[in-house]
Amino acid sequence: MTAVADPAVYADRVARVRAAMATSGLDVLLLSVGADLPYFTGYEAMPLERLTMLVLPVDGDATLVVPRLEAPRVVEQPDVFALLAWDETENPIEIVAALAKGASTAAIGDHTWARFLVDLLAELPATTFRRASTVTGPIRARKDAAEIAALRAAGAAADRVAAQLHAGEIPLVGRTEAQVSADISNRLKAEGHERVNFAIVAAGANAASPHHEAGPRVIERGDVVLCDFGGKLAGYCSDITRCVSLGEPSTEVADAYAVLLEAQQAAVRSAVVGTTCEAVDGVARRIITDGGYGERFIHRTGHGIGVEEHEDPYIVAGNVTSLAPGHAFSVEPGIYVSGNFGLRLEDIVVATDAGPEAMNHANHALVVVDA
Amino acid sequence: MTAVADPAVYADRVARVRAAMATSGLDVLLLSVGADLPYFTGYEAMPLERLTMLVLPVDGDATLVVPRLEAPRVVEQPDVFALLAWDETENPIEIVAALAKGASTAAIGDHTWARFLVDLLAELPATTFRRASTVTGPIRARKDAAEIAALRAAGAAADRVAAQLHAGEIPLVGRTEAQVSADISNRLKAEGHERVNFAIVAAGANAASPHHEAGPRVIERGDVVLCDFGGKLAGYCSDITRCVSLGEPSTEVADAYAVLLEAQQAAVRSAVVGTTCEAVDGVARRIITDGGYGERFIHRTGHGIGVEEHEDPYIVAGNVTSLAPGHAFSVEPGIYVSGNFGLRLEDIVVATDAGPEAMNHANHALVVVDA
Repeated sequence: MTAVADPAVYADRVARVRAAMATSGLDVLLLSVGADLPYFTGYEAMPLERLTMLVLPVDGDATLVVPRLEAPRVVEQPDVFALLAWDETENPIEIVAALAKGASTAAIGDHTWARFLVDLLAELPATTFRRASTVTGPIRARKDAAEIAALRAAGAAADRVAAQLHAGEIPLVGRTEAQVSADISNRLKAEGHERVNFAIVAAGANAASPHHEAGPRVIERGDVVLCDFGGKLAGYCSDITRCVSLGEPSTEVADAYAVLLEAQQAAVRSAVVGTTCEAVDGVARRIITDGGYGERFIHRTGHGIGVEEHEDPYIVAGNVTSLAPGHAFSVEPGIYVSGNFGLRLEDIVVATDAGPEAMNHANHALVVVDA
Repeated sequence: MTAVADPAVYADRVARVRAAMATSGLDVLLLSVGADLPYFTGYEAMPLERLTMLVLPVDGDATLVVPRLEAPRVVEQPDVFALLAWDETENPIEIVAALAKGASTAAIGDHTWARFLVDLLAELPATTFRRASTVTGPIRARKDAAEIAALRAAGAAADRVAAQLHAGEIPLVGRTEAQVSADISNRLKAEGHERVNFAIVAAGANAASPHHEAGPRVIERGDVVLCDFGGKLAGYCSDITRCVSLGEPSTEVADAYAVLLEAQQAAVRSAVVGTTCEAVDGVARRIITDGGYGERFIHRTGHGIGVEEHEDPYIVAGNVTSLAPGHAFSVEPGIYVSGNFGLRLEDIVVATDAGPEAMNHANHALVVVDA
């Protein structure tokens, strides 16, 4: 799940989250499905109806509560947690509630299924719940050298697929978006990804829907095609967007792309340590607004990335978090003209003391391809 | 996502869940990620940090709250919901809370991310929350004729892969569990599945872990190999388990398998309309206990299946739900001897007025294969 081999890494991370819990007045942290649990323990919960939950008090011993039939999957980390297996006819909520008893304030994993929180609310009526990400997010957001190396490797693999797209090695004309999406997915795997998270392929007017699902639309000569793809390589995520044009783009598209490119590059350059997240968003937004496309840029500029595709820090108006060394995030402004075309340009960037380091280096132009 | 083409199906399902809400004293139903939302609206929420939520009051109009950049993905169902898109700098929790205002009791989708329930608790302090499955579960559990046909088609596709396994067409000896798992996954897709949900391949002692993850263990002559695989075909799930023996099994394994086979077949036969779920579990458990393996059968006998791999009704001690026509579920007892071997045998079964109908017909024996 993660690129971590050394068990001491987990103990160190747990010590840091306990310190954050103490500062925040949190008595207990409850982690289930999602990326927090493997980040802190090396174990990923199965996303099933049988509850897996780490109960981590601010002081004292942590317990990983798991269904008995999944207990053999757990690699124990004696420095981090004790294992407690529950049987099919036991109620794991009662077990967790007993371990968390007396907690005035608990934080629960953001992706934990609501059914378990509903049940915990009934068992622990005096406990106030918060999002776990209030303490785990800032820790996960700061990548160490090994994590940055993993993001670099994932980015390089995605770049190689982008280069194939630019070189015309991925057939486009006459194929459906869905076929090209499957092709890109296979290429991400061939380049080392263990998992593909998404491969958006949106042709022509379909690209005006930022989260368009690749479908039966056949790609034609003259189309501008937006490709946004990523996956996981050695536990860390890639995410890149490039647009290509099948033939010379119209003046309208070329003009919009010039504005987009300027905005994206300026936003990347602006992402220096100490700048706020919303300031980076503001740099991209101002250039696109000045270019006359302000109302066409309908989403934030980016999201953090690491063991999850989307995590802290979010590059969005209102986020006054200052960039710190190790913060990793996407910079991906877009311009969407409904019924006509859509453009987006995306790199992953890491803030470092030496300035922003891009994880992606594939050609940033609107490349004209014959494929 | 689902096999439904006729929009009237959604309106009918919504009418039935509203009736169940009225009976249960529920004021509003809140659905996000998970299988409930597509079952009732045809739209599947993206599992991302931007909230998608259907707000369905027991009376009055329903609203689907979606991020603006995902709104173009929604196929509108005017008879079911109105669409409300939120912008990047808006707070969707405030929008949902305003729509649900005054609700004394709300039900929230079981798989909704806890972070959204945490936020709703703060916005709606006077509202009591329950699991949505208390009203959606019994409705989804009863499959109509089209759904049973879809389960039959998915089961037949899984059966064809099991037949390939039995015929020795899937190479085993000298390959790792992970390689065989990938092979089975590809075959599920070749047989029509749009998605593979899991392909457990557990050789020798690894099979004593019921949820073993296929790994680097190389399969050898003499191994008993447990294969448990399934996916989604036209929106409905398959799930089958068969064990094969690479050479004549030991007397110990053969004896245990004979008990398992008898238990599984008797449990399938017992699954007639009107019988309780726990009684079906009891039939399998009694035979395995009488055979001397009671402590080796460490999980429930089965789970419901449909648009999700695991859903109501669960075939487990304590579930006094009576089987009704259209209930679809797995019957999958197992015998696990730690450090030695593991056996499981699984079919999907639908309760009908004419008796239990199996969705799987692949050979139930511990087939000796040379592959």
